[in-house]
Amino acid sequence: MIRVTVWNEYRHERHDQQVASVYPEGIHSAIAVPLAKEGLAVRTATLDEPEHGLSNDVLDNTDVLIWWGHMAHGEVKDEIVARVQQRVLDGMGLIVLHSGHYSKIFKTLMGTTCNLKWREANDHERIWVVAPGHPITEGLGEYIEIEHEEMYGEHFDIPAPETLVFVSWFSGGEIFRSGCCYGRGRGKIFYFRPGHETLPTYHHPDVQRVIANAVRWAAPTPGATRIFGNTPALEK
Amino acid sequence: MIRVTVWNEYRHERHDQQVASVYPEGIHSAIAVPLAKEGLAVRTATLDEPEHGLSNDVLDNTDVLIWWGHMAHGEVKDEIVARVQQRVLDGMGLIVLHSGHYSKIFKTLMGTTCNLKWREANDHERIWVVAPGHPITEGLGEYIEIEHEEMYGEHFDIPAPETLVFVSWFSGGEIFRSGCCYGRGRGKIFYFRPGHETLPTYHHPDVQRVIANAVRWAAPTPGATRIFGNTPALEK
Amino acid sequence: MIRVTVWNEYRHERHDQQVASVYPEGIHSAIAVPLAKEGLAVRTATLDEPEHGLSNDVLDNTDVLIWWGHMAHGEVKDEIVARVQQRVLDGMGLIVLHSGHYSKIFKTLMGTTCNLKWREANDHERIWVVAPGHPITEGLGEYIEIEHEEMYGEHFDIPAPETLVFVSWFSGGEIFRSGCCYGRGRGKIFYFRPGHETLPTYHHPDVQRVIANAVRWAAPTPGATRIFGNTPALEK
Amino acid sequence: MIRVTVWNEYRHERHDQQVASVYPEGIHSAIAVPLAKEGLAVRTATLDEPEHGLSNDVLDNTDVLIWWGHMAHGEVKDEIVARVQQRVLDGMGLIVLHSGHYSKIFKTLMGTTCNLKWREANDHERIWVVAPGHPITEGLGEYIEIEHEEMYGEHFDIPAPETLVFVSWFSGGEIFRSGCCYGRGRGKIFYFRPGHETLPTYHHPDVQRVIANAVRWAAPTPGATRIFGNTPALEK
Repeated sequence: MIRVTVWNEYRHERHDQQVASVYPEGIHSAIAVPLAKEGLAVRTATLDEPEHGLSNDVLDNTDVLIWWGHMAHGEVKDEIVARVQQRVLDGMGLIVLHSGHYSKIFKTLMGTTCNLKWREANDHERIWVVAPGHPITEGLGEYIEIEHEEMYGEHFDIPAPETLVFVSWFSGGEIFRSGCCYGRGRGKIFYFRPGHETLPTYHHPDVQRVIANAVRWAAPTPGATRIFGNTPALEK
Repeated sequence: MIRVTVWNEYRHERHDQQVASVYPEGIHSAIAVPLAKEGLAVRTATLDEPEHGLSNDVLDNTDVLIWWGHMAHGEVKDEIVARVQQRVLDGMGLIVLHSGHYSKIFKTLMGTTCNLKWREANDHERIWVVAPGHPITEGLGEYIEIEHEEMYGEHFDIPAPETLVFVSWFSGGEIFRSGCCYGRGRGKIFYFRPGHETLPTYHHPDVQRVIANAVRWAAPTPGATRIFGNTPALEK
Repeated sequence: MIRVTVWNEYRHERHDQQVASVYPEGIHSAIAVPLAKEGLAVRTATLDEPEHGLSNDVLDNTDVLIWWGHMAHGEVKDEIVARVQQRVLDGMGLIVLHSGHYSKIFKTLMGTTCNLKWREANDHERIWVVAPGHPITEGLGEYIEIEHEEMYGEHFDIPAPETLVFVSWFSGGEIFRSGCCYGRGRGKIFYFRPGHETLPTYHHPDVQRVIANAVRWAAPTPGATRIFGNTPALEK
Repeated sequence: MIRVTVWNEYRHERHDQQVASVYPEGIHSAIAVPLAKEGLAVRTATLDEPEHGLSNDVLDNTDVLIWWGHMAHGEVKDEIVARVQQRVLDGMGLIVLHSGHYSKIFKTLMGTTCNLKWREANDHERIWVVAPGHPITEGLGEYIEIEHEEMYGEHFDIPAPETLVFVSWFSGGEIFRSGCCYGRGRGKIFYFRPGHETLPTYHHPDVQRVIANAVRWAAPTPGATRIFGNTPALEK
């Protein structure tokens, strides 16, 4: 059974009535509940817990980590970022959602600024599948339709995705690379765009489906042996 | 000096008054003239010439071939397709425009159906740059704006581009991977979406600029030696 | 349960005593038996059967097709090649082994000559894992060691692999991109180098393991909807 | 004219007689002189200069930065690393040589450990071209032969290269991805493996040729406009 930890900054929900009305138990809970219904082993962790809820013990029992953050990226300790990075390189899957594009962990793993354009104006968003054979698209139609969302636009300062799965269309005139797969070390990383805190995006069945698909895709496989360092010549 | 051959089916312009009014000298001419002004050595070739204008002698003197076709893909002889394919593998650049997505040469080099969605309804198109450091984007702003164009939509059945340079936004609600780079053998291939025959797209300065940039990008470099076949063991 | 069809030309084994002594039941059988032991549903098909054993009914019941051919590539009917190509684009997995690099189906899907260098001199081969987190490497060490194999060397005229999983070292001085993943349409393709007909390579446990891993990786997922053709504008 | 800055740690040469005998003017000089002969505008910079020789003024006048470091990676100030990273994202080319794989700047841009295997045993190295149409291979044969070199082996913990240009064969039995292209922001990055400090590798004409080719490939193009931040909806 795949073990998922859903990490959430969990600040907006406690300080902003509008966000609380959409996600009364927190964004982490809105993400975790449907994953648990899919039969995954799910726990949550938040910024204000000791070690941000990401102790070595928790990470020892995490196959895939989901990350939502926005207003407090700077409060995440560098030591925890380094710890999560090492886990990803060792094989843990990582799914970065929406404003997590600007988290320390995502920027560290990408090597770029991960900056982008944005507009809070309730654009209509249509998230088109461009890789319809990819396991992350399992069970979707041609696109996911989201009535109101924050716009994210290009240029999105990321390395070219190893696989581009989704591209968003926004009614205000922009497009955005919305579903991006990467490998780093033995770990798989998926960035998925939607999920503004004031909007009910994580209650959308297709968004929930993509996150569940991505968890299964990003779950580690033991893979092959990696050896580093000084080594003698081989025979023959 | 880079030597360019602009190939055009050249049928619409001779049989359809609307197309003729937009491209009185043919689409090939509309593409060739601005390239010549850029200092490139340009010739044209069309379907109804002997060997479709693509004799071995012409190809011997072609660094980059540009391809526009639509209503008569089936009339292009397989022998000429095989000849052009071999030239691309040997290093000749190939730029495939608009409805050329369905040409024999493009389908042969891609290995897929190259099918897509479409709509002739004068959509507004905005071609966003997603790779702003790429030489094909030289001199552009954030996007190219085209007031009226035929819509092409996903799914576009191509191999994942090695580099994705442009993504189009259409007012009717679709997106499309509009600028796609590939390598095949020693040759470079660029697919560029816009250019419906009834619309003045090839008179648009930014479209002309992209085609000129793509010619420079796709021009062959001698590169390294390739050797095939049976071979003895090397020393040491 | 994943349904595998192992296709083999099955000529060497019937005409060459040396090959028959290594693969008395045919190469297809040597590949199929360990897959069946892994719990996969396996059938075989060979060139000299009607429709080369690849009727529509067989392909309707095939999730992943494995292909071994060498001396009779030219006898495979174009109609069957087109049929298999369409199945791959529709989602069927394809695993191409060794000299299958020069099969019509592989060349058609790649768009290149797929030519390479070779030497039959019992080189020592060491197949290094370069993507140790990839599911195809599951359960391997750092490399697969094969005491004697035919050498294949660069340049290998293929499109750049979307994922490069293995690189071979040969005692005679060459390297080769030995494990190459591609997507075409909704289908996944894996090329795996080793398997000369006179040598017991398909009895090697690690080679069997890679083929079984590749079958699981290439098995189709329903994925998302693909729609092509003329289409009206969307709402909003 | 392309402006190149060759950065070298410049410690081995001053403290180790063996290295000094091979590179009496320093590795930076051995790299810079042949580039200047190619008509490039070359300067050098070293670790022990103020700001490691990489002041804003120097970087303002640098199109491509070449990096060689080994024993003192830890002494490079984080502030200078951040400065160089930003320059790369803004378009400056970066060529990382040999033991520079473990430099702070390369690890920062890759997001991985960049660890590898190694052996100082005067292996014979043969650097095979696997992308013979790539401009970095201009003028090479099938491979570059280096009589004695330090071995670097897989696993090399880097993101999958966007373009893999070279793969090394070592007489001791290993292979290595030796020439790796990446884009980060608007900048181009090339990692090139050979160049152990005790061996005359940078006097090898083909190694010099690759570095010169890589400089031309990595030189910035103005490209297209990038805009980030809050933005109003577009017309239409």
